Amino acid sequence: MIKVGIIGATGYAGAELVRILMNHPEAEIVWYGSRSYVDQKFSDIYKNFFKIVENVCKDDDFEALADEADVIFTATPQGYLGGILNEEILGKVKIVDLSADYRIKDVEVYEKWYGIEHKSPELIKKAVYGLCEVNREDIKSTRLLANPGCYTTCSILTAYPLVKERLIDPATLIVDAKSGVSGAGRGAKVANLYCEVNESIKAYGVASHRHTPEIEEQLGYAAGEPVVINFTPHLTPMNRGILATEYASLVKKADGSLPTNEEIKAAYDKYYADEFFIRVLGANQCPETRWVEGSNFVDIGFKIDERTGRIIMMGALDNLVKGAAGQAVQNMNIMFGLEETAGLKLMPVFP
Amino acid sequence: MIKVGIIGATGYAGAELVRILMNHPEAEIVWYGSRSYVDQKFSDIYKNFFKIVENVCKDDDFEALADEADVIFTATPQGYLGGILNEEILGKVKIVDLSADYRIKDVEVYEKWYGIEHKSPELIKKAVYGLCEVNREDIKSTRLLANPGCYTTCSILTAYPLVKERLIDPATLIVDAKSGVSGAGRGAKVANLYCEVNESIKAYGVASHRHTPEIEEQLGYAAGEPVVINFTPHLTPMNRGILATEYASLVKKADGSLPTNEEIKAAYDKYYADEFFIRVLGANQCPETRWVEGSNFVDIGFKIDERTGRIIMMGALDNLVKGAAGQAVQNMNIMFGLEETAGLKLMPVFP
Amino acid sequence: MIKVGIIGATGYAGAELVRILMNHPEAEIVWYGSRSYVDQKFSDIYKNFFKIVENVCKDDDFEALADEADVIFTATPQGYLGGILNEEILGKVKIVDLSADYRIKDVEVYEKWYGIEHKSPELIKKAVYGLCEVNREDIKSTRLLANPGCYTTCSILTAYPLVKERLIDPATLIVDAKSGVSGAGRGAKVANLYCEVNESIKAYGVASHRHTPEIEEQLGYAAGEPVVINFTPHLTPMNRGILATEYASLVKKADGSLPTNEEIKAAYDKYYADEFFIRVLGANQCPETRWVEGSNFVDIGFKIDERTGRIIMMGALDNLVKGAAGQAVQNMNIMFGLEETAGLKLMPVFP
Amino acid sequence: MIKVGIIGATGYAGAELVRILMNHPEAEIVWYGSRSYVDQKFSDIYKNFFKIVENVCKDDDFEALADEADVIFTATPQGYLGGILNEEILGKVKIVDLSADYRIKDVEVYEKWYGIEHKSPELIKKAVYGLCEVNREDIKSTRLLANPGCYTTCSILTAYPLVKERLIDPATLIVDAKSGVSGAGRGAKVANLYCEVNESIKAYGVASHRHTPEIEEQLGYAAGEPVVINFTPHLTPMNRGILATEYASLVKKADGSLPTNEEIKAAYDKYYADEFFIRVLGANQCPETRWVEGSNFVDIGFKIDERTGRIIMMGALDNLVKGAAGQAVQNMNIMFGLEETAGLKLMPVFP
Repeated sequence: MIKVGIIGATGYAGAELVRILMNHPEAEIVWYGSRSYVDQKFSDIYKNFFKIVENVCKDDDFEALADEADVIFTATPQGYLGGILNEEILGKVKIVDLSADYRIKDVEVYEKWYGIEHKSPELIKKAVYGLCEVNREDIKSTRLLANPGCYTTCSILTAYPLVKERLIDPATLIVDAKSGVSGAGRGAKVANLYCEVNESIKAYGVASHRHTPEIEEQLGYAAGEPVVINFTPHLTPMNRGILATEYASLVKKADGSLPTNEEIKAAYDKYYADEFFIRVLGANQCPETRWVEGSNFVDIGFKIDERTGRIIMMGALDNLVKGAAGQAVQNMNIMFGLEETAGLKLMPVFP
Repeated sequence: MIKVGIIGATGYAGAELVRILMNHPEAEIVWYGSRSYVDQKFSDIYKNFFKIVENVCKDDDFEALADEADVIFTATPQGYLGGILNEEILGKVKIVDLSADYRIKDVEVYEKWYGIEHKSPELIKKAVYGLCEVNREDIKSTRLLANPGCYTTCSILTAYPLVKERLIDPATLIVDAKSGVSGAGRGAKVANLYCEVNESIKAYGVASHRHTPEIEEQLGYAAGEPVVINFTPHLTPMNRGILATEYASLVKKADGSLPTNEEIKAAYDKYYADEFFIRVLGANQCPETRWVEGSNFVDIGFKIDERTGRIIMMGALDNLVKGAAGQAVQNMNIMFGLEETAGLKLMPVFP
Repeated sequence: MIKVGIIGATGYAGAELVRILMNHPEAEIVWYGSRSYVDQKFSDIYKNFFKIVENVCKDDDFEALADEADVIFTATPQGYLGGILNEEILGKVKIVDLSADYRIKDVEVYEKWYGIEHKSPELIKKAVYGLCEVNREDIKSTRLLANPGCYTTCSILTAYPLVKERLIDPATLIVDAKSGVSGAGRGAKVANLYCEVNESIKAYGVASHRHTPEIEEQLGYAAGEPVVINFTPHLTPMNRGILATEYASLVKKADGSLPTNEEIKAAYDKYYADEFFIRVLGANQCPETRWVEGSNFVDIGFKIDERTGRIIMMGALDNLVKGAAGQAVQNMNIMFGLEETAGLKLMPVFP
Repeated sequence: MIKVGIIGATGYAGAELVRILMNHPEAEIVWYGSRSYVDQKFSDIYKNFFKIVENVCKDDDFEALADEADVIFTATPQGYLGGILNEEILGKVKIVDLSADYRIKDVEVYEKWYGIEHKSPELIKKAVYGLCEVNREDIKSTRLLANPGCYTTCSILTAYPLVKERLIDPATLIVDAKSGVSGAGRGAKVANLYCEVNESIKAYGVASHRHTPEIEEQLGYAAGEPVVINFTPHLTPMNRGILATEYASLVKKADGSLPTNEEIKAAYDKYYADEFFIRVLGANQCPETRWVEGSNFVDIGFKIDERTGRIIMMGALDNLVKGAAGQAVQNMNIMFGLEETAGLKLMPVFP
């Protein structure tokens, strides 16, 4: 059994790691780290685990944990892991970091968008960006895994094959994303109170959300050139789910015609046909977050608009699963040579 | 592998059976019955099963199904199974009926509350009421299992030990229950539209809901005498979950004092301490439906009010799992001699 | 124009006072008091008032405000007004207090349930309990109005005529109440975050909620004897609304029969037939919070259960309007000799 | 008093007309038309109007109604009014049509997008498109008012000044809109059931929604040339509200620089500064549907993205008020020479 430590176990992503790992056939949690709830029973905080998890929350003694665990998941604020990680720890334990500290290769970009100094920039190059379906080979051998953000996973996977195959012009890409409220975390803020969020929708972080450079970097690799996009997140009154609606101009073929539904579908299939967790719905299909809730699936559909020459791509996932804890476990499975779907064949829960 | 047929697979309870059975280690679904969607792919109706269930919905050819399956789950309207079932079918296949047709022993009571004639009253006595934790021994050997209703499972289990141990006076029992909307089914009715249900709460079926006699019959067995109660269901703006808030006068002890928290807790523990799916939270604890959502758990808490001499008992479950499909699978497990928790160690999904 | 000051204008009840008073024909707000947001524009906090309210929030300088205003609404934490009010202030300005400080006549009861010392107990006897439809005459002449709580308004009005007419036995009264989340206020607490409240229902404050003695006192006056009840509030996933489901044994008539629907209806009509804000739906009707949302109405229905000899009474109101700000304005109207419905003919908003 | 008839009074838009007109100082409803509920009390269908509206629903006898009323609001399915209206009726009564029958000037465009034959195309040229803030002068004198759609009102008003002032390139315009569920109407469809909509978001009608040509026609007038856009509606789990997030490339100035925040704001102010119902929040402000709920306001904000040279415009309104019934009453006010805000100074209801 792989021994797992979680730092930040009492946030929503941390608790989702617990939910998934409790049914994982080859992993066991040995450390529930939570600064806010030290010495309290984990199941007093998350009563869904009453009689299931008997452990008490511990402080984040990273050194001790590195000796005890085979892998540490850090579901922590930005800057935390960057400030504490070093080669020695990495020599002892593998890390799956759910924060953004090692996602962006250019430390200046990181520091600009996050507004904090990176304390261990020398480790960034060791990190592998854990978008499983894209970087699987590199993930197998890394000890420092940068787990992608929720918006980014959805945004990138939805557009990736079309960017890679040059079917769309990346300079025209606009991502309009809608997220459930769990993405905002469990902090006690007025803005996230029930009555403030319920019965309303709003954009936020327009043209300034931190997931923007992460999407741009990864799609830039796919495009073979820098990509600059518009990314607009929206807060939607639901617990879970991200829907990304993405717009881009199709690249015309030599004869001046637009790519067909079949050609677009073939591009998606080229990359995703064998992927268990990516379900390509196909042309003229609209994914809905309800169909993936609670699961590690990403559903993708698209619509070609002949009138404007654009394609509308749509992707849906559960922000806490494929957008956070599920992909983190998927990465752990790859890093430890396990069946990639181990513990992750979660059926979507509907309604 | 146990071969399972489902009649009524495209209702919410039917689809939840599919969700649970897809991860069941010893069962496979061989028949997705749905009158409304014959010849349509099941995963076109419930797109959460896209790429997971490839089957097409079939009509309800009960005879053919009885030859093919080891067990049939009927998630059908009242009267359907009663009108079709006979000894010959029962000789071929076991039945787990999620409708009310065989729950009530007194056919007159059934006909009065349901307003329909029972077409096979002679089979009622063969049926076992499938409240697993109460009737486990009888369930093991039955071929006709009457799966309890959602409200009834919650209402009975919450009060059962105190009725059985004569700690409360059943004549004073009042059950005020609150249900999520999936309990109302998937029929296209104005009353269940999003805008009609959202941002509102109401009582309905006051002093006339059909689950009343079912609760009374079962608690009557526990009390050793007829029990008549008030039962008031409420429609609550959430997808899943039932919370039963139950009031009863405590029976005073010989010295005139009320039972203590410890004595009440001991009564619950006497019946439930070894039950995996019943979690007794204890004194002064209030269960919440969010902590059981998606799982087969029932959470129970209570509060003694010295001022009024009453006890307030509270129980919470997921109406589609322990209140329907989960308990149905639990019953199947018992009927086939499997591990009772097989396929049912579903972690509650929060948030 | 009546000059109105509001202390606690940035809580939900305070903001609802603003919404109502903005359309009041004979009142104008001269003071938006808010400790948390001093010197900030009120409409930066509540952006629904953008371009409508240009005022800036002020601190709670009660002395200055008493000179400036004709009436002060205090939508403040328990103990605040009790600690600051005196005869001199009352000589200058009328007070409508939305907190509980002057609701309960017996200061010991107040101090026990609220756990704080009352700093001006000598003023309690001057206060009038502002349940408009019951205490209208006394309200006309008071300068210190104790505005009833949200649960209490709903709970009392639903049972009042039947208690007063001795049609039910008050000793058997059980109030099972369900409230929207705005009743919990706008404080930044984890328990009130969207993801914590959404998709769940729970009881809280069982047998200990502070509105209990307030209900008991008022119904005690109606009964002519002390009344002790069970009151159980529930947190329901919706912004607004309270539904009270109340159970009591009917008092049999001399011939041993139960009161009829007509007799019950007549009792309600005796007290409410001429009341604009109380709508008696009648027998076998279930009020729903959606039908009163945004308005000052209370809807009341009932169901007699011949089987148990009990009656189930149901009342619904909007906790922020009739349960707080609306009733407060109604009281102001009475205190100042205005048309009682002035500014309050708000149509319920549905859906 | 203006005598108002409503055809389609029991749909959501019809009922919202009732809510607004009940408090209108110069209008009274004389006809509640509803095919589905003929002879039933209106307040039995919409119980929020219990004791407020005593009228019974009538069939849609247009001839009789034309004699009786000064104005008829038709909140009816597409094609209904087009099939029944004629010069004679128009000679007797003014019409405010909430359907799409007379919104689009080119009958071929109408017939293509709506898939029905227009039965009275000769009347189209008589109709005035009722976007009050844009077409006020023409509205004053028309007898046939085509009330704009909900999505269209929001989409057009949000972009109009920038198109008109050539600050953005209309060929790059993309409208990503999110609507509450009341926009889908009150028909009994599985897709609109509570459990189907709750906890999910989806796009629908992608590149094919019928509001597209309406937006294009109106913005085309502003641009002085044909405009073709992408419009993508989304179903959002809330009762009311539309948020339009709109993307377009800014037109660079002669010196190659982008327009500034001040220049954009000035363009909005040029058209909207004196408009009571349009609230321009300004640069870097994100409107939220909660701040306009229940009111006739449109809130507009924007964000310039220097990185991409695009502007993100955002508009929010209540689909049933400014997006339907409120704007319809605003149009009536203009058509009858009343104060434009009469009956429409509805404060937004929050929370």
